[in-house]
Amino acid sequence: MPNSSPPSLSHIKETCLYIQDTARTRAFYEGILGLTCIAEVPGQFAFFRLGPTMLLCFVREFSERNPTLPAHGACGVQHIAFEAPSTEAYEQWKAYLLAHSLPIEHEAAWRLGRRSFYFRDPDGHSIEITEPGIWPE
Amino acid sequence: MPNSSPPSLSHIKETCLYIQDTARTRAFYEGILGLTCIAEVPGQFAFFRLGPTMLLCFVREFSERNPTLPAHGACGVQHIAFEAPSTEAYEQWKAYLLAHSLPIEHEAAWRLGRRSFYFRDPDGHSIEITEPGIWPE
Repeated sequence: MPNSSPPSLSHIKETCLYIQDTARTRAFYEGILGLTCIAEVPGQFAFFRLGPTMLLCFVREFSERNPTLPAHGACGVQHIAFEAPSTEAYEQWKAYLLAHSLPIEHEAAWRLGRRSFYFRDPDGHSIEITEPGIWPE
Repeated sequence: MPNSSPPSLSHIKETCLYIQDTARTRAFYEGILGLTCIAEVPGQFAFFRLGPTMLLCFVREFSERNPTLPAHGACGVQHIAFEAPSTEAYEQWKAYLLAHSLPIEHEAAWRLGRRSFYFRDPDGHSIEITEPGIWPE
């Protein structure tokens, strides 16, 4: 293989989850978590923006058969994590989700005592909210 | 449901792919794409950092049975996208992957003529590299 160094990349821009119902997904990610929905096509997808990153939620039967782009689609339980900007926001999230009757499934402590907690989205995907700094920079 | 506004989130911090072989995955994401591998445990996971985001690659049989964290694991073809920092870097990526015998499956034009292209990782996941600005800010 060639020995050249790779060009640069900034960050992961798009993260995908495979879902059943765009309206239900929108009610959760926009209505409860506060992400900005920038597109929803029932039966196909709902796209959300969060800072410099995008959460793309696809109905699997659509993305597997979309004739215009490379096929993709997964089943099972996926995992994603959102970062809270501060410990204060992290604590606010725990109280907020409790007030919305969304049970926290687990809380973990990581490097430097930084914490994260886990809950589920409407499709059963495992969603995590972290304090800043759980990963080395 | 309560009417309070959600606390803030910064961005998607962790994106997960489910894989078969950590060494093969590391050779691809670190060795070719240039992400920083911060942990690899054969048979379990390989974790990579890219700017403010993390790519967590799990052997599904491990993450589904990990006794210490909520279970997750998906099968099928997932999709993620990386953002190149400039049009120049985007063009460099196309030449670089060609030189590494990684075929580009498709190239698409989006808003404002900004482009992205698609290729596959060793597990067949659909990987995209985008020019900056394909999504509205």
